[in-house]
Amino acid sequence: MLGLGKMGPRRRHGIEPTLAGVDGVPTPTPEDRFTFGLWTVGNRGRDPFGHEVRPPLDPVEAVHRLAELGAYGVNFHDDDLVPPGSSAAGRASILGRFRRALDATGMKVPMATTNLFSHPVFKEGAFTANDPAVRRYALAKTLDAIELGVELGAGVYVMWGGREGTECDAAKDVRLALDRYKEAVDLCCAHVRDRGYDLRFALEPKPNEPRGNLLLPTVGHALAFVERLEWPEMVGINPEFAHETMSGLSFHQAVAQVLWAGKLFHVDLNGQVPGKFDQDFRFASEGLKDAFHLVRLLEEARWDGMRHFDAHAYRTEDADGVWEFARGCMRSYLILREKARRFAADPEIAAALDEAMAGRIAEPTSPGGHAPDAIAAIRRGPHDPDGLGARGYGHERLDQLVTELLLGVR
Amino acid sequence: MLGLGKMGPRRRHGIEPTLAGVDGVPTPTPEDRFTFGLWTVGNRGRDPFGHEVRPPLDPVEAVHRLAELGAYGVNFHDDDLVPPGSSAAGRASILGRFRRALDATGMKVPMATTNLFSHPVFKEGAFTANDPAVRRYALAKTLDAIELGVELGAGVYVMWGGREGTECDAAKDVRLALDRYKEAVDLCCAHVRDRGYDLRFALEPKPNEPRGNLLLPTVGHALAFVERLEWPEMVGINPEFAHETMSGLSFHQAVAQVLWAGKLFHVDLNGQVPGKFDQDFRFASEGLKDAFHLVRLLEEARWDGMRHFDAHAYRTEDADGVWEFARGCMRSYLILREKARRFAADPEIAAALDEAMAGRIAEPTSPGGHAPDAIAAIRRGPHDPDGLGARGYGHERLDQLVTELLLGVR
Amino acid sequence: MLGLGKMGPRRRHGIEPTLAGVDGVPTPTPEDRFTFGLWTVGNRGRDPFGHEVRPPLDPVEAVHRLAELGAYGVNFHDDDLVPPGSSAAGRASILGRFRRALDATGMKVPMATTNLFSHPVFKEGAFTANDPAVRRYALAKTLDAIELGVELGAGVYVMWGGREGTECDAAKDVRLALDRYKEAVDLCCAHVRDRGYDLRFALEPKPNEPRGNLLLPTVGHALAFVERLEWPEMVGINPEFAHETMSGLSFHQAVAQVLWAGKLFHVDLNGQVPGKFDQDFRFASEGLKDAFHLVRLLEEARWDGMRHFDAHAYRTEDADGVWEFARGCMRSYLILREKARRFAADPEIAAALDEAMAGRIAEPTSPGGHAPDAIAAIRRGPHDPDGLGARGYGHERLDQLVTELLLGVR
Amino acid sequence: MLGLGKMGPRRRHGIEPTLAGVDGVPTPTPEDRFTFGLWTVGNRGRDPFGHEVRPPLDPVEAVHRLAELGAYGVNFHDDDLVPPGSSAAGRASILGRFRRALDATGMKVPMATTNLFSHPVFKEGAFTANDPAVRRYALAKTLDAIELGVELGAGVYVMWGGREGTECDAAKDVRLALDRYKEAVDLCCAHVRDRGYDLRFALEPKPNEPRGNLLLPTVGHALAFVERLEWPEMVGINPEFAHETMSGLSFHQAVAQVLWAGKLFHVDLNGQVPGKFDQDFRFASEGLKDAFHLVRLLEEARWDGMRHFDAHAYRTEDADGVWEFARGCMRSYLILREKARRFAADPEIAAALDEAMAGRIAEPTSPGGHAPDAIAAIRRGPHDPDGLGARGYGHERLDQLVTELLLGVR
Repeated sequence: MLGLGKMGPRRRHGIEPTLAGVDGVPTPTPEDRFTFGLWTVGNRGRDPFGHEVRPPLDPVEAVHRLAELGAYGVNFHDDDLVPPGSSAAGRASILGRFRRALDATGMKVPMATTNLFSHPVFKEGAFTANDPAVRRYALAKTLDAIELGVELGAGVYVMWGGREGTECDAAKDVRLALDRYKEAVDLCCAHVRDRGYDLRFALEPKPNEPRGNLLLPTVGHALAFVERLEWPEMVGINPEFAHETMSGLSFHQAVAQVLWAGKLFHVDLNGQVPGKFDQDFRFASEGLKDAFHLVRLLEEARWDGMRHFDAHAYRTEDADGVWEFARGCMRSYLILREKARRFAADPEIAAALDEAMAGRIAEPTSPGGHAPDAIAAIRRGPHDPDGLGARGYGHERLDQLVTELLLGVR
Repeated sequence: MLGLGKMGPRRRHGIEPTLAGVDGVPTPTPEDRFTFGLWTVGNRGRDPFGHEVRPPLDPVEAVHRLAELGAYGVNFHDDDLVPPGSSAAGRASILGRFRRALDATGMKVPMATTNLFSHPVFKEGAFTANDPAVRRYALAKTLDAIELGVELGAGVYVMWGGREGTECDAAKDVRLALDRYKEAVDLCCAHVRDRGYDLRFALEPKPNEPRGNLLLPTVGHALAFVERLEWPEMVGINPEFAHETMSGLSFHQAVAQVLWAGKLFHVDLNGQVPGKFDQDFRFASEGLKDAFHLVRLLEEARWDGMRHFDAHAYRTEDADGVWEFARGCMRSYLILREKARRFAADPEIAAALDEAMAGRIAEPTSPGGHAPDAIAAIRRGPHDPDGLGARGYGHERLDQLVTELLLGVR
Repeated sequence: MLGLGKMGPRRRHGIEPTLAGVDGVPTPTPEDRFTFGLWTVGNRGRDPFGHEVRPPLDPVEAVHRLAELGAYGVNFHDDDLVPPGSSAAGRASILGRFRRALDATGMKVPMATTNLFSHPVFKEGAFTANDPAVRRYALAKTLDAIELGVELGAGVYVMWGGREGTECDAAKDVRLALDRYKEAVDLCCAHVRDRGYDLRFALEPKPNEPRGNLLLPTVGHALAFVERLEWPEMVGINPEFAHETMSGLSFHQAVAQVLWAGKLFHVDLNGQVPGKFDQDFRFASEGLKDAFHLVRLLEEARWDGMRHFDAHAYRTEDADGVWEFARGCMRSYLILREKARRFAADPEIAAALDEAMAGRIAEPTSPGGHAPDAIAAIRRGPHDPDGLGARGYGHERLDQLVTELLLGVR
Repeated sequence: MLGLGKMGPRRRHGIEPTLAGVDGVPTPTPEDRFTFGLWTVGNRGRDPFGHEVRPPLDPVEAVHRLAELGAYGVNFHDDDLVPPGSSAAGRASILGRFRRALDATGMKVPMATTNLFSHPVFKEGAFTANDPAVRRYALAKTLDAIELGVELGAGVYVMWGGREGTECDAAKDVRLALDRYKEAVDLCCAHVRDRGYDLRFALEPKPNEPRGNLLLPTVGHALAFVERLEWPEMVGINPEFAHETMSGLSFHQAVAQVLWAGKLFHVDLNGQVPGKFDQDFRFASEGLKDAFHLVRLLEEARWDGMRHFDAHAYRTEDADGVWEFARGCMRSYLILREKARRFAADPEIAAALDEAMAGRIAEPTSPGGHAPDAIAAIRRGPHDPDGLGARGYGHERLDQLVTELLLGVR
């Protein structure tokens, strides 16, 4: 009989072991640094062709439910927590209730952000709108939201420029738009410096949707943009699985470049199929192999920031489905983390990595550095391209071992 | 301690268990109906930017090695086995050696096909070339290859129209091209009928590459085309994982439609990422979830035809890597087949399927059929859209159970 | 001085010539058979990340404005015209007003359709919902909408199965879902036959969005499905530019196959970039070359049905922008139609087509048909693959001529 | 009568006006800075499924033919000009002949590059191969090719890392691979500095093909990478239309960001459809609108570098088709350049740009800069989001004007 998984009381008793770890999957805890947006568990299932299917979710309930499930914290856009147009008293009351929920549960608000995309005012852009009045309003709204975030203890401020883009390319001078984008980020940094806040910014790239083409469409474009800012050290990246995958790019490879550049300030996890609309599915429900390599990378890099799930339940779900969704995101991360540990410990995988010479990428090409004679020596050789080219690297075996590790047969 | 996979002598002894099934994965046998193309294990690693990296593989060696690995048979394009320009004596000698290998191993040749794409003569098309002389040559070459296939016992003839397409759309009248495509397939059918062969045809769709756009780009377009043939009962489909996935379409859903139409005559398995060049990677190395649903579908449908791997080893591999590749394709199929069995037996999955009302899709919408009063009764109702719309379907839970089944934690 | 376009009073006077044809572009007239959906000009600019930006548009105003612009008619989903939940009196009043607008303008309602996607009841499917009660409601709603359409003179009924699909593949048995899909279409046909209506159905395929994967994802899959219906002669296809293009497929090639199969019952025109969300941009604003070949095809095939624009104005637009959008769709079609005429008349293009042997695709491959000796003669040859392969087809020149025709320099 | 294009002796006489400019399209001249790779016009039509269809092209003939067509220069990979394994004498003889062709025609070699992708030695990577011996050979080959390039006057050295990537992600530590990539580029820069050459480097990003995923997959990723180099001022970008478009990204927007960063060192022009294999079609044969905005951008930015066509003739073509291809690339650029001039001069377009507030993107958001009170003033407002959100931007009209400009009716 073939035992692909593992046996346990789970199957015999039919009990629900998810939170108890009876099936061997660890129960999420705050130490795992899992966070959700209020807008994710609060997503009501509206889509371009359909109305809302779920009732509004009280942020306070979200805090309690997520705490029970083992999350570390919640994040929000300004409007998610305090409805636009609230009075000062209304705002204070909302914040008071919300803070009490945080205090009661120990939940944190590690990240905050601004909704610069829903209101018609932003239809032509926010930080890069042609109209300076729109840009000023976008900046003011952001500054207010920074205050709100700082008030609640956020250490990272995410900027997703969901309306910074075009359908009609003639209408936007891209180089000037990048000037304005830089100006806006610089102004936010200046404000934070003036106030002495301990807050860093993370740009979240996306290739398209809702605009035909968005500025800073990939992790790379955003990383490059940061280098032209006034205070580049204050600004990093918030890569999102779905956004990079929409363009058919490797997400874990993108995150690796962000880490390499010292710019991973936050990360958004979800599921997505390449070349489709922004799906924001449950983490690891699509793109399982890339998700595994991502988790392996984050754990190997000892990433100590948040694992934020920017996703939502399918529209087929009622409220119960929302919590299954949240639980599933965390479980899959923990299962993949365990597989990453096994990857590191598996002797056959280690042998295959040796066969692939994986460790030798750490050796310098030029042990003598940039010195002219070191370079000359390399140029001189001798070189044996035909001999080197005859070697096999055993990638089929290695990749199959990874596949079988994923499938639980090793 | 978390046991995501299973324990066994495998790890303790460090032995290679693949063929012995020591690790619980069944050893492939001919009953599993696994086949490979000579061009797959014989692929030499040439790509648009690189030269060949592996030496030619003798078809006789391919037969022996694949037999040892547990395959059922091998398939080939005419030119794979008998090099173009071979003399009659040369051809006879090649065939004799090849037959002896088949006899010695018990390997079969269940499918044959024609290379209508490599030679410059086909650059503007083969069955749909504008030049009638090219079309006639393509037909003649196909008829010769049919004879060769029949001689070796093939029961299915695959037609992949790799050059039937355009870059310059003005140059091709698509409707007339479909006339010519139909004519060519009809002529092949006529020939088979005249000869009394027991041979069926399977069209293999592909969206693009090597042409900018190919005719019959998806499983659907090919299925529809079959209905306009002279003898539609003789012609079915050979869906390929990579080809449908290149367009971002669900492969298992496409195969389900082919089965529904009674037209699954062959199936090509491999791995592919959407929106990229034709990768032809090892089966299940990409698209794991779709691969699982495909295997589940084929097994539930009791598909008794071939599981043909139309894939090749990475260019990083030497000859050993080729056999690891072949072994990996079969192992992954068998692992997924076992998971399909578990899916059917898992009580929590069964409960989640009930919650999703999955079984009720079998119930007719109109128990009274097309009768006017049956229709009128449905129209009258009563209907309760708001009540029905409030229900949740539990898809997050169900999909997570499938994910965890795939990951080997259940 | 380079004259790429044409001179005229237009530029000298700065007048707006669109409707007068002063700039040489014909003014749209009802003879051109242009139609719009009420939902297209009535689109309020809501998207997955943004609220409505435009006020509701009164269907009666839509009729008058489109009539002024030269359209032939308007189409609608049931809910577009009669809000769900309207009383019988309310419905009658709405219909009365709408009919008067039609009468006053001469506008027609050539097509009707049902909204089976907005209400939560359809979240798991409509015709293919697992729950038979949902399917019955979907059928009832469709039958009501058929009555409404027939009442207003529609000759074509479009079926877009926007919720017939999955995210969680385990939840849906695709083969049974196709049984149910067929059952629903058959029931609609039965109803139309019972009533003796002169109404045909057109299936509209789409690959994904709002569901992760939709059933009948391409023109091909829908065409193939029709062949398994009870009354296939009553059902054809409504191909849409954006939907086929989302999958990276050639739209004009798809329409050519639909025409070849005798199944073009309607056509939806718009603009779309491959591999992105469903953009529904103004016709010819993206995919200009494919749009040209499409128009050329429709005109050469003497397509006498509707040219329906299923698109909407960018979210940046106010009400004026909506009418510019509508005008632009029609103008681009007429400009491309004129270019199609020039294509047919251009002697250099004719010479290049000869060089490409474009006309010879009309010659049968086997002048002797299926007769065994005709086939044998073709098989025998002689064949000269090397000689034929040395020929060039002049596609670079031909395609550049087309490009320059499009660019207006010939 | 509708005059969509322009009249002239061309049509009346049926003469070939391309080189004479009789049809109003300027004849290319060296001032236009058009260059081609030896590998582009020398492409023999081999593809993943087909053999070569064209004979080898003598580089000397390429120089003469391109000079006749009006090109400014030719570029090459080391192996394109000097076959691998050539003796010193053979090399000298080849170079002598080639130089004489350059001298005779006035053609330049503005760019050079290295083939680090064809030989099996590079199958696992070149600068980022796991094996240090491979990396050293790649470096040595590059240094030799730099010498060759400098010898022939090249001022830009393009680096395309066609093998720097993975299929089996486990085999490559991406962060260490980026270390090695940086090391290799730094070593090349060190060599150039040591020698005192006037040579800059341009990185050419590509998302995939021939590897499953490539490092530095987009313009953005490459731009960001440059910032971590030892001498970032020596290294810029060579964006390629096809490569960015494969990922579905806007090419002209990417080039705008490169210009904004001061890093446009070279540009590769061709045609490509999103989400497909690397097509390298004739410039502007696909993606016409993006091509127009690109040309407009390059001309507005007064780009004084090369317009390099990295494309090749369709496989349907013989040698004549190759020169039609080359001619078409240049003609389309010149036609689009003329349209860019018209765009700038057209009063209706200017009015639509005003309506879109296109010019106001140049105004700072914060006229008072980063000063705290300037920021506070913006935060204070007043703001009128509802009023600003009610405005329309006239993008439908503007985009239609651009479309009609492209179509030659204005």
